[in-house]
Amino acid sequence: MTDTAPGTASRTPTRRYGTRPTMKDVAARAGVGLKTVSRVVNGEPGVTPDTERRVQEAITALGFRRNDSARILRKGRTASIGLVLEDLADPFYGPLSRAVEEVARAHGALLINGSSAEDPDREQELVLALCARRVDGLVIIPAGHDHRYLAPEMAAGVATVFVDRPAGRIDADAVLADSFGGSRDAVAHLIAHGHRRIGFLGDLPGIHTAAERLRGYHAAMNEAGLPVHDAWVSTGPTDPERVRAAATAMLNAAEPVTALFAGNNRVTVTVVRVLAERPAPAAPVALVGFDDFELADLLSPGITVIAQDSAQLGRTAADLLFRRLDGAGGDPRQLVLPTRLIPRGSGELPPPATSTA
Amino acid sequence: MTDTAPGTASRTPTRRYGTRPTMKDVAARAGVGLKTVSRVVNGEPGVTPDTERRVQEAITALGFRRNDSARILRKGRTASIGLVLEDLADPFYGPLSRAVEEVARAHGALLINGSSAEDPDREQELVLALCARRVDGLVIIPAGHDHRYLAPEMAAGVATVFVDRPAGRIDADAVLADSFGGSRDAVAHLIAHGHRRIGFLGDLPGIHTAAERLRGYHAAMNEAGLPVHDAWVSTGPTDPERVRAAATAMLNAAEPVTALFAGNNRVTVTVVRVLAERPAPAAPVALVGFDDFELADLLSPGITVIAQDSAQLGRTAADLLFRRLDGAGGDPRQLVLPTRLIPRGSGELPPPATSTA
Repeated sequence: MTDTAPGTASRTPTRRYGTRPTMKDVAARAGVGLKTVSRVVNGEPGVTPDTERRVQEAITALGFRRNDSARILRKGRTASIGLVLEDLADPFYGPLSRAVEEVARAHGALLINGSSAEDPDREQELVLALCARRVDGLVIIPAGHDHRYLAPEMAAGVATVFVDRPAGRIDADAVLADSFGGSRDAVAHLIAHGHRRIGFLGDLPGIHTAAERLRGYHAAMNEAGLPVHDAWVSTGPTDPERVRAAATAMLNAAEPVTALFAGNNRVTVTVVRVLAERPAPAAPVALVGFDDFELADLLSPGITVIAQDSAQLGRTAADLLFRRLDGAGGDPRQLVLPTRLIPRGSGELPPPATSTA
Repeated sequence: MTDTAPGTASRTPTRRYGTRPTMKDVAARAGVGLKTVSRVVNGEPGVTPDTERRVQEAITALGFRRNDSARILRKGRTASIGLVLEDLADPFYGPLSRAVEEVARAHGALLINGSSAEDPDREQELVLALCARRVDGLVIIPAGHDHRYLAPEMAAGVATVFVDRPAGRIDADAVLADSFGGSRDAVAHLIAHGHRRIGFLGDLPGIHTAAERLRGYHAAMNEAGLPVHDAWVSTGPTDPERVRAAATAMLNAAEPVTALFAGNNRVTVTVVRVLAERPAPAAPVALVGFDDFELADLLSPGITVIAQDSAQLGRTAADLLFRRLDGAGGDPRQLVLPTRLIPRGSGELPPPATSTA
């Protein structure tokens, strides 16, 4: 099996879009040998200042650039890390991505992003494509629940840290927010303000954070000795149509819920709309949402939330990744960052007088 | 100059993180020659079904993966495009990124993202790093104003489309929103509702969109025969502190503005906060913001905006990129997408009775 030298790669017949100047072109223009050009390009010794200047001039004149794909093959390190997100358009991941990028940059590494769109096959395809491009490490917000496909890559040295959700069926570093504890706090807060009939609107129950938040809801209800009716729990995709229908059903039932706990920012925003659109004589409904969101404090009432620090999640995961790349050993670790309840009005509304126990 | 075959790249002494199985390992385990493994890996003919099965079993058992860095060198195509954003955490870019990714995926290409953080040097570094990794094409939201550094890459065949802002000092495809026309509409709308003293709060004037929006403000004022006082125009970084100070100065001047036009979503959100925090007897101030944002309709009053379709910008740019990659010739094109004024209340507030002409 043969390989093309980087300088000639662009001359293969399958290349369609123009031709790049090669090291040969640089050597010809500078009137030096190929090895000399290679030395200059790779910063190796053994070239006189005058020759180096001639080569640099030829490089500039021709617009030659080193092909890093070839360097990667020779050096084994690419100074790049991959970040696999769940959804590029979810505002929760913006600060997380930026934090990972800042840590990568501080370590001189390029960040390569991609999103799985909550599709396990797409996650695997993207992760393996990044591994095939020889990233040094990966920060993954997983969509799937079985990451055994990553075991050979990790064994080969690709440092991997999961964030927001843990890895499935392999042991790996993970940085998570306290979804269970935060949700228990949210529901306990509503109970402390007099609510007994509290609805839970959450994401697909197969998603780790969604399952943990549902578990927190049940724990708080259970600790207060309150029953949970099936009609008070709705989990599924977070598209507005489904959430709107589920919230409306809970609010219009014969014994309606007096408070809602929304399992993430996408759900909360839809519930805010549903509550705002209710006709005037409707009794106010209390609401606590998991995840803070922009302008939550400027709505009337302000929206009480369980805030997780998405930038801190990203920073912590990236710091851990680079510690692993710098040789830190030890078993995989699971770091759980605390959440914070921010009362703003919506979560402190009492139930209507007739519905209190 | 020599190159390492892909299968042996991981054996070079500089590789630090474990060892990957090579094609040689696969060949040894399957009891076949290297060329046979290569044929199976690359889907080439000339291998019996039984041999192929043996090779596949060895690949699975060893966790072997083809090194795409080597393939890129041989084939000249990487099936990947790069997207260079200005800020990963700005919600305006979320739908744009997702749209570019969807188009890339429909063309079987991987999307590699990075952000310049509004730093021209960082933009150049990132763009050239992506070119060195042999992306087929680039979608760029530029931070800088001089893109001559890209000319050799474009001549070598890297298709490039600028989006949101045009290229500087080179001819290149660009997809833009109508910042000038949208801003003129916004200010004309405020004038039509009786305002004469209208403030403009914008981004750094070196940014193309910011300059165009300021130009639209001046055009509308000029067309209505209204003077523009220096104190009514403030441009600069969009951090909340600066915007807050500038808005407060305009509102507390001896002859205060009665309406504000905010040049982008970051500015608008801060202005909404400034207006919400004014003490109770203050007269309402009209506001139109460039860019729509989530929950703008649920504030009191709802925020009137000039909406641009960020997903459509991304989709149009990516479509144009892949048409170029598929061989579409012709001069560079500049596509300008229309904006849309969405009245919601804040832009329809009249000036206080004493201040109308």
